[in-house]
Amino acid sequence: MNIDFTYHNPTRIHFGRTAMNHLEEELNLYGRNILFVYGKNSIKKSGLYDTVMKALAACGKRVTELSGINSNPRYTQVLEGARLVRESHSDLILAVGGGSVVDCAKAISVSAWCDGDPWERYWEKGGKLANPVVPVGSILTMTGTASEMNSGSVITHEEKKLKLGRVFPLAEVTPKFSILNPEFTFSVPKYQMVSGIFDIFSHLMEQYFSGDDDCVSDYLLEGDMLALISAARKAVKDPSDYEARSNIMWCATMGLNKILALSKTQDWEVHMIEHQLGAYTDCAHGIGLAIVSIPYYRHIYKYGLHRFVRFAQNVWKVRPEGKSDEQIALEGIQCLSDFIAEMGIPQRLRDVGATEEMLPLIAESAIKCGGYHVPDTAEVLDILKEAY
Amino acid sequence: MNIDFTYHNPTRIHFGRTAMNHLEEELNLYGRNILFVYGKNSIKKSGLYDTVMKALAACGKRVTELSGINSNPRYTQVLEGARLVRESHSDLILAVGGGSVVDCAKAISVSAWCDGDPWERYWEKGGKLANPVVPVGSILTMTGTASEMNSGSVITHEEKKLKLGRVFPLAEVTPKFSILNPEFTFSVPKYQMVSGIFDIFSHLMEQYFSGDDDCVSDYLLEGDMLALISAARKAVKDPSDYEARSNIMWCATMGLNKILALSKTQDWEVHMIEHQLGAYTDCAHGIGLAIVSIPYYRHIYKYGLHRFVRFAQNVWKVRPEGKSDEQIALEGIQCLSDFIAEMGIPQRLRDVGATEEMLPLIAESAIKCGGYHVPDTAEVLDILKEAY
Repeated sequence: MNIDFTYHNPTRIHFGRTAMNHLEEELNLYGRNILFVYGKNSIKKSGLYDTVMKALAACGKRVTELSGINSNPRYTQVLEGARLVRESHSDLILAVGGGSVVDCAKAISVSAWCDGDPWERYWEKGGKLANPVVPVGSILTMTGTASEMNSGSVITHEEKKLKLGRVFPLAEVTPKFSILNPEFTFSVPKYQMVSGIFDIFSHLMEQYFSGDDDCVSDYLLEGDMLALISAARKAVKDPSDYEARSNIMWCATMGLNKILALSKTQDWEVHMIEHQLGAYTDCAHGIGLAIVSIPYYRHIYKYGLHRFVRFAQNVWKVRPEGKSDEQIALEGIQCLSDFIAEMGIPQRLRDVGATEEMLPLIAESAIKCGGYHVPDTAEVLDILKEAY
Repeated sequence: MNIDFTYHNPTRIHFGRTAMNHLEEELNLYGRNILFVYGKNSIKKSGLYDTVMKALAACGKRVTELSGINSNPRYTQVLEGARLVRESHSDLILAVGGGSVVDCAKAISVSAWCDGDPWERYWEKGGKLANPVVPVGSILTMTGTASEMNSGSVITHEEKKLKLGRVFPLAEVTPKFSILNPEFTFSVPKYQMVSGIFDIFSHLMEQYFSGDDDCVSDYLLEGDMLALISAARKAVKDPSDYEARSNIMWCATMGLNKILALSKTQDWEVHMIEHQLGAYTDCAHGIGLAIVSIPYYRHIYKYGLHRFVRFAQNVWKVRPEGKSDEQIALEGIQCLSDFIAEMGIPQRLRDVGATEEMLPLIAESAIKCGGYHVPDTAEVLDILKEAY
């Protein structure tokens, strides 16, 4: 643990079949005005909308609704939410949905009382929080982003064709409470489920593929990967397996509540490329990540060979006997590729709405970072072409 | 993650060589009156006492001191601290030392404003918190107990010959902040260092050896064990290896801040036996745990064979080919025993001041719990005799 850190994550997590029993006690901690943010019709179909409205009524809340939040939440929706918070003097923003809805709620929470243009200040320029933040609570219906226990918010500016993530100070922006009932994720279509699974896996790899030291966080990240692989294989066979789905849900929260990233440098280039892919194609986030990952890791593994060898042996149980480090590392990446296929995830960009014309635009606009190597635009274009 | 849970751990952790830079900003969050709790002379020798006093003076604090806290903090000291808090109207209890000092500070924090006898209410009867809790902050100089990020408090009642642990509600009693500078642990004698290492290892095993389900927490516990084994081997060879010592320190905090125990049933019988061993001999906690562990696990492994097989393979890399489950499990326990020897830890009760006459008294008074099997007094006596 060579790199100094401060960690403070005050989100209260209620997890399990009975988690919703805590909703009213949480709501009672806040004032009367609630902005209720959700997606499209799925929570109405499932009955969750009615359950939440009943709890809100029981607590005597005055409710303003903002619905229709997309899988890539848009800045125009953030501005609309911010206006509603100001008009209704919201005491709490209650997000009910997947990571996109929670990300949108957090964006609204920092934007409502911001002077000037929040996009420019917070997402483009990464400016310091300079205004009060409205508290956020969440009830999850999809898993993947860990938005329920972190301070990240990924927003798409449609006009500018930019999808930017901002990580705010953890203790100030992470939800005050999050309710995680794995059964609420059962109604998610299989395609979205495996997208979420790969999103989680990618978060773990983005944090793992960096650094040359012996760091506790890497061992814990491997543990979370192993738990996820085991649960994902069961869930793909039987999406109603509670044990498997609850494990996936907790792997996700642990995977990006930042406690497994402490004292780590990190990568995140796969996410940067996918964010621009998402801005152009609106493809499911986890699917885009899976498609980009294999050519990306085949491109960069030589720069962090020892870590890719470790990944192969510790995560995929590749036996090293009689093999060179290169062979072991590549076998590990092949295991990852096989896992993607096993999940039934598409493996080419052309399958998710990308066109050849988009590739240079995505390569150009993607932010360049990286753990063992920072690729330039030409290298990102090569990776995208391989993925096409 | 079959068992529902609520998790909320609001301790702010400052970790690393620069962690002390945060002391004044933390102190400024509280009122003027500070109860400064510490152990014997080691913080005066190391200069830490002066550093802390200087920070307290710079923040304009009025300081009351309580020193001489033992490695098994005594109830009489808790009562003395509670009296000092009342007399000086302490706004914050600042604990500087190892887990015992922090445990003692937490005991004082719940006892100061308790009507009636806190020992009886909170430790003997496990009663609900029914009075205000004085905030606690900690600066660690030894690692092992994770008291810096949990709500446990183990106190010895000398007159009653009882050493009892109480786990209070996490969010109410865990320290508000903890400062963890691994360099502060360098001055700890090697015997105390390895005692701390085994204490950490034991916390992980107590949480691990229970349950038959596929639970994310077990994978994370294995990750923490693997990180600890790697770091411990380096630290025993070179106690001034910052990377190794910092890893041990973080393994300890993660090992019992309860985030790796979520959705788990647990064991804790080794700790129950050791607590009574400690009440009779005052031996170092981690050393007592190590001595009890091997005969204990050899006694109970059959009841949770699958988990002991998993432990052998995942933690100790025992190869299963051509071996029965029993053989694999026992080989895992032997690896644990070899690790204890490698750490230079004594392996017999007679080496730590226990006498044969004590054994029935310890067996009788130890609380009986367990993960895969709850031993009775006769079984605990057998285990103690084997350990003698």
